[in-house]
Amino acid sequence: MADPRFFRRSGPFRLQELAEHAGARLLDPAAGEMLIHDVAPLDRAGPEDLTFFDNPAYLGQYRETGAAACVTAEKHAGKAPPGTALLISPAPYGAYARIAQLFYPPPPVMPGRHPSAVVHETALIGEGAWIGPCAVIEAGVRIGAGSSIGAGTVIGENAEVGADCRIAPNCTLSHCIIGDRVTLHPGVRIGQDGFGFHPDPRGHVKVPQLGRVRIGDGCEIGANTTIDRGAGPDTVVGAGTWIDNLVQIGHNAETGQGCILVAQCGLSGSTKLGNFVAIAAQSGVAGHLTVGDGARLAARSGSMHSIPAGETWGGTPAMPLKRYFRMLKTLEKLGEQKVEKG
Amino acid sequence: MADPRFFRRSGPFRLQELAEHAGARLLDPAAGEMLIHDVAPLDRAGPEDLTFFDNPAYLGQYRETGAAACVTAEKHAGKAPPGTALLISPAPYGAYARIAQLFYPPPPVMPGRHPSAVVHETALIGEGAWIGPCAVIEAGVRIGAGSSIGAGTVIGENAEVGADCRIAPNCTLSHCIIGDRVTLHPGVRIGQDGFGFHPDPRGHVKVPQLGRVRIGDGCEIGANTTIDRGAGPDTVVGAGTWIDNLVQIGHNAETGQGCILVAQCGLSGSTKLGNFVAIAAQSGVAGHLTVGDGARLAARSGSMHSIPAGETWGGTPAMPLKRYFRMLKTLEKLGEQKVEKG
Amino acid sequence: MADPRFFRRSGPFRLQELAEHAGARLLDPAAGEMLIHDVAPLDRAGPEDLTFFDNPAYLGQYRETGAAACVTAEKHAGKAPPGTALLISPAPYGAYARIAQLFYPPPPVMPGRHPSAVVHETALIGEGAWIGPCAVIEAGVRIGAGSSIGAGTVIGENAEVGADCRIAPNCTLSHCIIGDRVTLHPGVRIGQDGFGFHPDPRGHVKVPQLGRVRIGDGCEIGANTTIDRGAGPDTVVGAGTWIDNLVQIGHNAETGQGCILVAQCGLSGSTKLGNFVAIAAQSGVAGHLTVGDGARLAARSGSMHSIPAGETWGGTPAMPLKRYFRMLKTLEKLGEQKVEKG
Repeated sequence: MADPRFFRRSGPFRLQELAEHAGARLLDPAAGEMLIHDVAPLDRAGPEDLTFFDNPAYLGQYRETGAAACVTAEKHAGKAPPGTALLISPAPYGAYARIAQLFYPPPPVMPGRHPSAVVHETALIGEGAWIGPCAVIEAGVRIGAGSSIGAGTVIGENAEVGADCRIAPNCTLSHCIIGDRVTLHPGVRIGQDGFGFHPDPRGHVKVPQLGRVRIGDGCEIGANTTIDRGAGPDTVVGAGTWIDNLVQIGHNAETGQGCILVAQCGLSGSTKLGNFVAIAAQSGVAGHLTVGDGARLAARSGSMHSIPAGETWGGTPAMPLKRYFRMLKTLEKLGEQKVEKG
Repeated sequence: MADPRFFRRSGPFRLQELAEHAGARLLDPAAGEMLIHDVAPLDRAGPEDLTFFDNPAYLGQYRETGAAACVTAEKHAGKAPPGTALLISPAPYGAYARIAQLFYPPPPVMPGRHPSAVVHETALIGEGAWIGPCAVIEAGVRIGAGSSIGAGTVIGENAEVGADCRIAPNCTLSHCIIGDRVTLHPGVRIGQDGFGFHPDPRGHVKVPQLGRVRIGDGCEIGANTTIDRGAGPDTVVGAGTWIDNLVQIGHNAETGQGCILVAQCGLSGSTKLGNFVAIAAQSGVAGHLTVGDGARLAARSGSMHSIPAGETWGGTPAMPLKRYFRMLKTLEKLGEQKVEKG
Repeated sequence: MADPRFFRRSGPFRLQELAEHAGARLLDPAAGEMLIHDVAPLDRAGPEDLTFFDNPAYLGQYRETGAAACVTAEKHAGKAPPGTALLISPAPYGAYARIAQLFYPPPPVMPGRHPSAVVHETALIGEGAWIGPCAVIEAGVRIGAGSSIGAGTVIGENAEVGADCRIAPNCTLSHCIIGDRVTLHPGVRIGQDGFGFHPDPRGHVKVPQLGRVRIGDGCEIGANTTIDRGAGPDTVVGAGTWIDNLVQIGHNAETGQGCILVAQCGLSGSTKLGNFVAIAAQSGVAGHLTVGDGARLAARSGSMHSIPAGETWGGTPAMPLKRYFRMLKTLEKLGEQKVEKG
């Protein structure tokens, strides 16, 4: 059970409700009235808990779980212990996630503003929104209904934040238009100048950065991530894109919908990702390139070329992953030969 | 045209004024009285706009631009459309940057201090400076004339900030001396302890970090970048050096003048860069090394050796770039051989 | 001598006191009454200063130092100049660090709270603690005795901070339990959601992150470092672990005691480090791995495999360091062959 100082649990829920909420099928309808009180991992779940099983590595724990109920795939139904009611789903982890959300919904936004917040009289704050202590909302800012602005967050002139957003404490936003249901974790920086200048030994000459940042609906952006505004065009994060911590997005870069950018990766200026692209941790894509729909870049890779849709690349400089693995194997053998000779 | 909610445009300006401001030559002096209202890229510029052309990749757009005027190099003059007045410059992008600055100057600093700012009575705030909401200025701090301190920024005891600086919101400064005309983007951390200690299984023993950070005139430092103070000597960023987002500068490191450090790169402790050194994105230089004047390190490279002046290195461990590319080519062939055999 | 605007010096101390404090042996007991006024490097130390010598690269400076006293190893005693009193220690740098701490102790914490701090009435603030300007302490938070909370730092509901901690300005803490004597540098983010979700083209499904972050006693965490809370289990930083700037720690990751994580490195989710593990700068360890006690990962390396205790690995993908160096050598020769042929 989650630490009650930090997490408020809802429920209990009837198993039938949970199945419906998750889009899963209850294998034995007779179990539908059973009350479930919590979610828990396979090895810690008890007679009031729901768990899930998907990764065969945990088969041993699955066979012996004490859970009241378990979400799993059709093919694994036969291996469950007899006392555990099964919810069948083609995507057990996703179904479990939806059920866990029901037990642990995000805390509600408390409407109002803390007296220490500095809100300009021309700012428009939507109904039910919360402005935290020492937050600073400048002139002309618009905050949508139900959004929460964390303590110490600073939102610059005329920036827009949509409805039902969760902006954590100590973020800085300017020159940006943020969609609905966007989550920003602490320390996110959005809208500052891009790194655009004419290099000159007598003093680099700044090129005014005249674009904005646009963040689509349903995005999530990790702690201390930085997204510079465009130089003329906008920098764009497509709807439903999730970005991890300490990621850098250069000016004019664009991501499509549903992309995944893992911690400490970076997109150079003017690079464009298609939809559902995944860039793994500590990787980078050079500037002015395109990465096609559904393409993936492995962790710690650096791409100097555009990546076609659907392909998975790796290495620095990055190449198709199979070729990269082949090269690594060749390298490894060469290294070993050296030993035999030496 | 830039979004007027975020950018205030000046002008119009006579083309002759713009040429003089940019140090460019007006090809047809008769066009000098023409009024220019805005800057725009080649493909979007209209009959009141100025644009620029430098990169041959955009020759097609240049030939068909609808711009009233265009900054370009002498050699490209013949390919411009007849209706476009030309400004000739040996460095068209730099000339364009200067003109764009004229149309979109940085917003002026509004003198004063927000009532929610916490300014110690012994702090000396220069004439015309601005201290933003919830900013904290500790005892003995000096802020130069015309500088702007963003909301929520904290400046520790006795730190100095020069004149005409732009310190963004949510920065943290201590143990530092910042020059004139320095720009810090949001979330910059300057002057905290370096990572100096005697490793000991019974508890690492901290070595007091007794130096400072000195930032030269005209520097620009990107969002969430961290610069530790020196251990005894100072950490130094030379005048006119530009640093991108999420960069790490270790204790006692030094950069010369006009260096360029691109996003997510790092300088280890006590490493010294000469003047006009460029370190590309996601690269690193190990500790106690030197990088000579004008040297360059390619993106995603890691140097374990000092780099001579004027050379360009790449790879991890880094080597002269030509050698690195040759090695990559050899590797590539080896990988392909493998396929033929298999 | 350190800049007195930023550092307050204690002393003078008798050499005998210093020897005792550092656990070092005074070679000539007659020098015990000598008064030492400051610490300084070999080449700048004068007749009132103590210095240290350990690294043979500085032998020339050692032979000519003007220091009143010097900490060094037994084996180097014979090469000191005659006028310099010697303190003999098996770990001269550690002994020096302890002496330097005596001359430059951390500034004392001033008890109280700034009137602009926002402290919830249910928060428990220990005796002698300091809450800085515009800091925000939410409901149910506990701050231990003698701890200092920097300006603009935000501590979320029910979080715990132990005794004698130094939390710098502009940090953000939530869902965490911090031990005693912990130092957080500016911009640290602890306790935000981990990057856990079921990827789905119709919208990624968040898996509620129900764990916490636990930081052991005596840890030090660098500027702008991010530590996500666990998904169910906790994310754990073991006692005495030191973490540099811009480091990423994923959900459920654990470090043992006394680990060292250098700047810009990252630990992926659920990876576990043993005790006294060192991860060098810009490196990464993939998820769900283990790194054994005392193991080390070289700078700019990426490990896709667990690392056995006591081993040193390097490269991407990482392998035992000797093998990696052998492979680099082979590669280098191949590159050169190419030249001869071409």
